[in-house]
Amino acid sequence: VDIPGATLGEETLAQTTGRARRGRVVRAAVAGATGYVGRELITLLARHPAARLTHLMSSGRDGKGSKSLEHSHPALRGKSHVPIQPLALEELGPATTDVVFFATPHETSHHAVPELLNRGLRVIDLSGAFRLKDAGAYSRWYGFEHHAGAALNEAVYGLTELNAEEIRAARLVSNPGCYATSVILALAPLLRAKWVNETVGIICDSKSGASGAGRGLSEKLHYVEVNENCRAYGLFTHRHVPEMLQALGLEEERFTFTPHLLPVNRGILSTIYVRLNEPREAAEVEGMFRDFYAAAPLVRVYEHGALPEIQAVAGTNYTDLGFALDAASERLIVVSALDNLGKGAAGQAIQNMNLMFGYAEETGLV
Amino acid sequence: VDIPGATLGEETLAQTTGRARRGRVVRAAVAGATGYVGRELITLLARHPAARLTHLMSSGRDGKGSKSLEHSHPALRGKSHVPIQPLALEELGPATTDVVFFATPHETSHHAVPELLNRGLRVIDLSGAFRLKDAGAYSRWYGFEHHAGAALNEAVYGLTELNAEEIRAARLVSNPGCYATSVILALAPLLRAKWVNETVGIICDSKSGASGAGRGLSEKLHYVEVNENCRAYGLFTHRHVPEMLQALGLEEERFTFTPHLLPVNRGILSTIYVRLNEPREAAEVEGMFRDFYAAAPLVRVYEHGALPEIQAVAGTNYTDLGFALDAASERLIVVSALDNLGKGAAGQAIQNMNLMFGYAEETGLV
Amino acid sequence: VDIPGATLGEETLAQTTGRARRGRVVRAAVAGATGYVGRELITLLARHPAARLTHLMSSGRDGKGSKSLEHSHPALRGKSHVPIQPLALEELGPATTDVVFFATPHETSHHAVPELLNRGLRVIDLSGAFRLKDAGAYSRWYGFEHHAGAALNEAVYGLTELNAEEIRAARLVSNPGCYATSVILALAPLLRAKWVNETVGIICDSKSGASGAGRGLSEKLHYVEVNENCRAYGLFTHRHVPEMLQALGLEEERFTFTPHLLPVNRGILSTIYVRLNEPREAAEVEGMFRDFYAAAPLVRVYEHGALPEIQAVAGTNYTDLGFALDAASERLIVVSALDNLGKGAAGQAIQNMNLMFGYAEETGLV
Amino acid sequence: VDIPGATLGEETLAQTTGRARRGRVVRAAVAGATGYVGRELITLLARHPAARLTHLMSSGRDGKGSKSLEHSHPALRGKSHVPIQPLALEELGPATTDVVFFATPHETSHHAVPELLNRGLRVIDLSGAFRLKDAGAYSRWYGFEHHAGAALNEAVYGLTELNAEEIRAARLVSNPGCYATSVILALAPLLRAKWVNETVGIICDSKSGASGAGRGLSEKLHYVEVNENCRAYGLFTHRHVPEMLQALGLEEERFTFTPHLLPVNRGILSTIYVRLNEPREAAEVEGMFRDFYAAAPLVRVYEHGALPEIQAVAGTNYTDLGFALDAASERLIVVSALDNLGKGAAGQAIQNMNLMFGYAEETGLV
Repeated sequence: VDIPGATLGEETLAQTTGRARRGRVVRAAVAGATGYVGRELITLLARHPAARLTHLMSSGRDGKGSKSLEHSHPALRGKSHVPIQPLALEELGPATTDVVFFATPHETSHHAVPELLNRGLRVIDLSGAFRLKDAGAYSRWYGFEHHAGAALNEAVYGLTELNAEEIRAARLVSNPGCYATSVILALAPLLRAKWVNETVGIICDSKSGASGAGRGLSEKLHYVEVNENCRAYGLFTHRHVPEMLQALGLEEERFTFTPHLLPVNRGILSTIYVRLNEPREAAEVEGMFRDFYAAAPLVRVYEHGALPEIQAVAGTNYTDLGFALDAASERLIVVSALDNLGKGAAGQAIQNMNLMFGYAEETGLV
Repeated sequence: VDIPGATLGEETLAQTTGRARRGRVVRAAVAGATGYVGRELITLLARHPAARLTHLMSSGRDGKGSKSLEHSHPALRGKSHVPIQPLALEELGPATTDVVFFATPHETSHHAVPELLNRGLRVIDLSGAFRLKDAGAYSRWYGFEHHAGAALNEAVYGLTELNAEEIRAARLVSNPGCYATSVILALAPLLRAKWVNETVGIICDSKSGASGAGRGLSEKLHYVEVNENCRAYGLFTHRHVPEMLQALGLEEERFTFTPHLLPVNRGILSTIYVRLNEPREAAEVEGMFRDFYAAAPLVRVYEHGALPEIQAVAGTNYTDLGFALDAASERLIVVSALDNLGKGAAGQAIQNMNLMFGYAEETGLV
Repeated sequence: VDIPGATLGEETLAQTTGRARRGRVVRAAVAGATGYVGRELITLLARHPAARLTHLMSSGRDGKGSKSLEHSHPALRGKSHVPIQPLALEELGPATTDVVFFATPHETSHHAVPELLNRGLRVIDLSGAFRLKDAGAYSRWYGFEHHAGAALNEAVYGLTELNAEEIRAARLVSNPGCYATSVILALAPLLRAKWVNETVGIICDSKSGASGAGRGLSEKLHYVEVNENCRAYGLFTHRHVPEMLQALGLEEERFTFTPHLLPVNRGILSTIYVRLNEPREAAEVEGMFRDFYAAAPLVRVYEHGALPEIQAVAGTNYTDLGFALDAASERLIVVSALDNLGKGAAGQAIQNMNLMFGYAEETGLV
Repeated sequence: VDIPGATLGEETLAQTTGRARRGRVVRAAVAGATGYVGRELITLLARHPAARLTHLMSSGRDGKGSKSLEHSHPALRGKSHVPIQPLALEELGPATTDVVFFATPHETSHHAVPELLNRGLRVIDLSGAFRLKDAGAYSRWYGFEHHAGAALNEAVYGLTELNAEEIRAARLVSNPGCYATSVILALAPLLRAKWVNETVGIICDSKSGASGAGRGLSEKLHYVEVNENCRAYGLFTHRHVPEMLQALGLEEERFTFTPHLLPVNRGILSTIYVRLNEPREAAEVEGMFRDFYAAAPLVRVYEHGALPEIQAVAGTNYTDLGFALDAASERLIVVSALDNLGKGAAGQAIQNMNLMFGYAEETGLV
């Protein structure tokens, strides 16, 4: 016996190593390195077999002068010698870097991304700045006028399982919102199969851990206020609604999304209520989901009777999908779970990077 | 200045004290004293100005021999000298006791309540044993055959705000489920006003703290399994559904209730989705709720734009109600919050006791 | 049977009501009404049978213009119509107010308290501004020069169980720190009995819930940073150390206090390590504690073999004390628990108010 | 640029892959697969580049018949096709397996380990059954008579940083307790340097997450009981004390260890109080720790002024060490943090496996 690899990791590692040998290392910079999504990007890139961190930048809190990584992220002590420096676009170019991740506020991405594209870099933007195809929609949902139309036009919406071909060729990938990923992956199979009675409306009731709200200070995120609490917010107005409508082809007035803040650090659980437009058996529903995601290594479809929960996905890059059906009344409830920092943000961003640079999508993620 | 009482407590205390002087002390026994609802009943009775604890009994964990109160409930150390003894119906009678609270499994109540009624005692049952008017429904929802038809017939459903008159006269009050209280108080005003489009269905997505699942051991309630987690359970099958249907007059196939387990100790947040059957302004909706609960001291209706959260009600006996309206699409979301041990269980039980014995319903509860 | 009162509350209520009838209402103002200690003071005053809220003031976050109480404290919705206004000393005087509670930063108290004393008001200051008898110590421990020497001279350290007589007569009570209360109550009996080998040193390892750090925003108190974490801080430098040394008569170099931040909202658990200076039996130790606190209604001494924990005291105004003894080696561990907002702050402040105005110390607190 | 590997993982991956190519795969079985330590072992083995899972066994809860992995551990869905079967020693032998990990109760290990050694297998036991060299000590600390003296004699205490040479050659490694690892790694450098005044005593105040207490049901571990709580337990009697005394060469009466239960899932923070026997500068202390652990890839020594916290190590296999010094009084506080499931259990077990089978100790762990 002299073949390396655990039962689990064996094939992935062998394939990945081979591929990495054949391919080339992806040189990656992270803007927004001091936030939670930034931390997750650094963690995933540091352990990725075919990536190398080149720059860590931050425009915010720790942006004044260079800081050590462990100053912002104690758990990453000793994981990289790349310091966190102030955001400096002029230091980023093809000589040193292949791709820049933006885990910044959307204002920062909106401003910086076009310049980096012009410099010949590829960009994966984790903010909302390039998610909506309709530039005019930004004033309503994001409160600013969009002035980067060319970049917006070429941006590919990075919901990996739905748009893999376009993502492979993209210069700019707009990484989906965490809630949006959770809801779109649950509904896309049903809607594409035209199984849903849209007239009665679709309800998405989502619950998210607090890291989804970022590291910026706010009384709403003060420990004592979140702990032993749960609250709904952004009713009818959350920014992830328009990207869900866009990706799913739904009418706003028949699609309701309500986010809630959970007292956990990581994870989103979405409970999604639809009425089917004709009777279905549970086996049919399970089969439909399994077929749709048969080739998707980061989506796990549960057998009928089992439901995902946050602990099943926290710290992973999976989206888990389960369902319950009341066949008599054609009511279907889909439950979707993911880690808002994993498949909901950094994990999906790395998944997209993998496609953009010729690696298997799950490389470094399982 | 020589009138006692804080701004807040003044009237209540004065009234209560006066009433207590005029009236008589309620002598109360608690069966199921070692659980969380039992603890809350003891706490509320101990501070109630017109109640006196006579017996604490437990059929379960601590039921072998008498135990001190602090053995089961460290926070109640020194609060009462009544020991917790094994359940012994024969010790309960009119000579010592006016009312018996059952915070036991429904099997225990089903068996014991008729005997206590026969002994001339009044009973407030916090289990599900007497909530469903249709005795035949117990086999489906609770898994047992109901054999206490006479008691079931006279049982009054103790949703205080809806049934006050019957409760005053009742010998047996069946205290509502925690989820049921949360949902019924939110929907009753809308349904009685006939504002709801029932055809498209009503969705109730509820989130509960772990004390709602009781103190019985289960891997699902082991600390590590609940902490940093959230999960849905009981989809289409939760036992509180039939009492909601019964109280609200709804068809099962158009009413969906999904409970979730939150990593908090106390509190329920219900997010309830309805479509109105004609256009309404937010002010109309708020006004309708305020009118409905104008005389209800334990329901707090929020102004449009504010929403209740769990911290607003944890440790209290209130139900808080708020809403958001998308007037254009006639979508209404009602958010309801209560403490599952307070208004969701022990608080409402004491509220019912107050009515049964001639006190203001909020006595000892605010 | 026509005597009101629960088994528990009976005597207290009757006594209190009688006393309140004979005595007079205490008219109380709260400065610092928007913080957590402020909230607890309002809660306790609102339910106190002999107190009336006159003013709620805040110099901070919500200090611009008047705000409703529920805006700052959702759980207090409907509890009082007194609005929260900006801090305005000129509105406070004997015509309207008997006592002012300061739950403000120490800078605010240091400045404002002398003026209020001059206006003829009594003050209970919950900040550290008047805790240290040595004015010169403030520069080291608090980082400012003390300029209110006259007030400092007359201030009485409000550790109720130790200083009741002086507190009754005081115009200015300096309420102890939460950690200090926890430690002093555990050690005072041992030290006064001269049972401790001080040479080997006393170690106090304390763990506090996050509300003890206040409501001010800080990354260290951001939900995600506190949740699933525990950290030590302020080693050898915490501000509560000098008041412990002062109250206990200890040398700094033989007394070590280390606070830790726990992921809970409320409560302090102190584990305190001493070596006895001669052999003792467990029964002796228990007896000594029981004798010391025989007349203290808010200290609960545990029987040997039982230890307090945070849940036993959270939401209460008690300090619970237990211990373990290794008789052979004369090692004694005392475990002390209290609620940092209860006996550790607002509860003790009300306890002191009770003494200052002639009520039983536990009035409104049990 | 065509060399694979992230900045962080590059060397480790390249070295490991090369080594794995040259060496041989370690075929590993896990007994006690359904518990938390079992889960962590499976997780680490599944991603280890040179290990392969051969058997998963459980004598407990899920031990009746084979179960899928995700049935016990939802997060491991899809990670391995090895089912969890009842404990069956007869299925384990050199033909299929190189090493067996025991993450079982100590009674199970005590019984099973000698048999497996006889069958020619190597064993890493994570229970306490083989930690104490003195067989007679088991009756006092563990409550049973030790009957496996031969195995006990050859067992090597697997505190990797202290015993690497013996571990490499061992057939039976007794993996240290989680608390013991936390305390021993903090104190060993100081004690070996003879810097400590042992006469005044050493105090170790440790705080652990609830997974350290295992997955077995107990009211003490019920969610509602642990959440919003903290308690001390096992004062003077915890089972990890004798292995600390043994490893550190300390007298019981001068060494006090108190564990506490924290409301977190993972992690131990130990605050350790010593008095130095002569004056030292902070730089000296830091240097001493750095020198001691210069070659230890899984111990991270902090610069003076920084302290580890649980979030810095949760989910990792590191032990982090920091300290604070009051030079004038020669008081030193060492703060140690690790993940009780990582370096405190499964991580250290894999670290030991690495040494036993010729791999770098950190392989698969960083």
